[in-house]
Amino acid sequence: MDNAECLLPSGFLAAITEAAIKRPGRPDMCLIYSECPASAAGMFTTNNVKAAPVLLCMKKIRAGSGRAIVVNSGNANACTGKQGMIDANETSKLISAGLGIPDAQVYVSSTGVIGVPMPMERMRTGATSLIEGIGKAGLRELALAIMTTDTFPKYTSREIEISGHTGRISAICKGAGMIAPNMATMLCYVMTDIAVEKSALKSALKNAVETSFNRITIDGDRSTNDTVIALANGMAKNKPVMRGTRDYKKFSSSIDEVLYGMSCLIVQDGEGATKVIEVEVYGARTAAEAKRGAMAIANSLLVKTAIYGRDPNWGRIMAALGASGIKINESKTDIYINEIPAVKSGMSAGAEEGIREKLSAKEITIRVVLNSGKSNCRVLTCDLTEGYIKINAEYTT
Amino acid sequence: MDNAECLLPSGFLAAITEAAIKRPGRPDMCLIYSECPASAAGMFTTNNVKAAPVLLCMKKIRAGSGRAIVVNSGNANACTGKQGMIDANETSKLISAGLGIPDAQVYVSSTGVIGVPMPMERMRTGATSLIEGIGKAGLRELALAIMTTDTFPKYTSREIEISGHTGRISAICKGAGMIAPNMATMLCYVMTDIAVEKSALKSALKNAVETSFNRITIDGDRSTNDTVIALANGMAKNKPVMRGTRDYKKFSSSIDEVLYGMSCLIVQDGEGATKVIEVEVYGARTAAEAKRGAMAIANSLLVKTAIYGRDPNWGRIMAALGASGIKINESKTDIYINEIPAVKSGMSAGAEEGIREKLSAKEITIRVVLNSGKSNCRVLTCDLTEGYIKINAEYTT
Repeated sequence: MDNAECLLPSGFLAAITEAAIKRPGRPDMCLIYSECPASAAGMFTTNNVKAAPVLLCMKKIRAGSGRAIVVNSGNANACTGKQGMIDANETSKLISAGLGIPDAQVYVSSTGVIGVPMPMERMRTGATSLIEGIGKAGLRELALAIMTTDTFPKYTSREIEISGHTGRISAICKGAGMIAPNMATMLCYVMTDIAVEKSALKSALKNAVETSFNRITIDGDRSTNDTVIALANGMAKNKPVMRGTRDYKKFSSSIDEVLYGMSCLIVQDGEGATKVIEVEVYGARTAAEAKRGAMAIANSLLVKTAIYGRDPNWGRIMAALGASGIKINESKTDIYINEIPAVKSGMSAGAEEGIREKLSAKEITIRVVLNSGKSNCRVLTCDLTEGYIKINAEYTT
Repeated sequence: MDNAECLLPSGFLAAITEAAIKRPGRPDMCLIYSECPASAAGMFTTNNVKAAPVLLCMKKIRAGSGRAIVVNSGNANACTGKQGMIDANETSKLISAGLGIPDAQVYVSSTGVIGVPMPMERMRTGATSLIEGIGKAGLRELALAIMTTDTFPKYTSREIEISGHTGRISAICKGAGMIAPNMATMLCYVMTDIAVEKSALKSALKNAVETSFNRITIDGDRSTNDTVIALANGMAKNKPVMRGTRDYKKFSSSIDEVLYGMSCLIVQDGEGATKVIEVEVYGARTAAEAKRGAMAIANSLLVKTAIYGRDPNWGRIMAALGASGIKINESKTDIYINEIPAVKSGMSAGAEEGIREKLSAKEITIRVVLNSGKSNCRVLTCDLTEGYIKINAEYTT
């Protein structure tokens, strides 16, 4: 708690508790509370099967304000029908009543097993304990309470100066097996005491998510519960950040960095991963094609297993690129693996042995240069190993 | 060779040889030859990176006729630049000269490592040996010669009667790790002595591929070399099968069955697979949505690892369905796993323990009933195991 990395911004209080939703001995509920009303923005899963709390948050976030976020891990409250929505609403009301704030200002998130009714007895006890414990937890404890298959807590905190006022941005996230629907939803909460006008917060969050969480992939799956919520409570007393200003630029780039850092931690903690892989596509005709090409490579099981096996198999990269459906001019395509040319003008550069040596590194960069346009995209992923299979085959058995 | 399963149709001769392109002791070139000109139809990979022989075949097949197919395994002749096309053309000309048939009637296929120049010295010796050996090999030998990571040869042969004339349809295929671009391209060759008019052959082949090879997936990748070619030489002396006739219906449904059988063999031989998984989506709004939903489930690593681990984790099926982007009405969605209801109206049917028992079977059927329309789709896939990782991580190292 003395560590600056663990600090919450002014006016934010936190609590965690063990509600026995996960296995014993691990915190599984937490509460984030702002002492004053805050601007709120959120981004939610694009999966067409959405958990009840996601649907609830999507409705509330439209007003652009909020004061509290309650999260439980161990049960996703997804595929739970009408009762799921009743339970999410009850959880929200328990917190709003306990804190004496409007129900509309309380956001609810859940992560865990799909299709099991919420253990509301335990949630009620947990909510009481959260209210009683408010202010007793710090950032790291919050990050611990939302973990499922994660192997380490993910959080960050940094100072930011806006027009002479010093503020802070803190964030926690979880999501080891990225978006493994069973127990590894991606959740992220951003808290700041910087005053930010609603639409500016929404825009900054949206941009930051696009270049962070929307640029990572572990297994290509998307969960029913993915949620990113930001609260900005204005306790730093700056003039509220408005879109199109220099302050906005500064705030926005801080949020970008915070979320990019969070997304890197998620990839590092990818289920069974031994290497982080950065895939860069340069010189595509359009931004959409750059992203599509990069994602196709990052999601290719053959590329991911080759990297795991230190196999300088650039043919799999070319094939994944071709299968992505984007326009490829083979004779103009170059590929570099950790800066060593693997492919020149669509053909082997003859450096397979040098690449094989480089592949023992923990961080691998695959750079594809299409020479067809000016659009670029970078995505992060990890290798695919027996560990991933083990974790996901044996999870609930 | 006495086995009816191993018979070639009348007028088809075959040869195989060891050209030392693969590791020693394994045949790696083969030749299919029709004694008289045949109608020809083909379907090729949709990967935008196409191997030289694929580009050559796509050009030749437009004429709708052919007499010979030469195939090598061990080298894909992909990402080999202009030289690759020169080599594919030379291979074709060696065969056309040796057999004394027009070059335009010779098709060339390659499967194996990407990005390595063709060993043309060995290909030339191999071509000579194939010409000398013509007629000495049968269907099974052909199937053996095109194998790469396949663990067993894949072939089938059956009689068919068309308007009182008895003919035969024989086919071989390969592709264990389905479309693993390095060494597991999908290749399939269909030979028949039934007379079939060109456009009827094309149409029958296209339909059959759509409900067979286009309905299976091992790892979601598509290779640079996938090829299906059919030759119909008319030696059965029937009146040529024309589109829209009863004969066409019969011929078409035979081709459907032959290719469906071939595609099942490929899934059975999926790299590292321990179970075949049939995914059925019923009651989608459109055929495209039915296929998209089924493919999303079949390609989900989380579903595939759950089945491997005998985990009755239907939440992963719901999440994959939702992530597919198709319209889902959760409260109308039912899921059955090996006939046991897992989900009723979007929620658990409470049968997890019963399903867990059923999951020890070798064949698993996941049936999703969307109750939103009248379109259905069935796809085949296999589970994802440590074996897949091992094969693909260690392949060339």
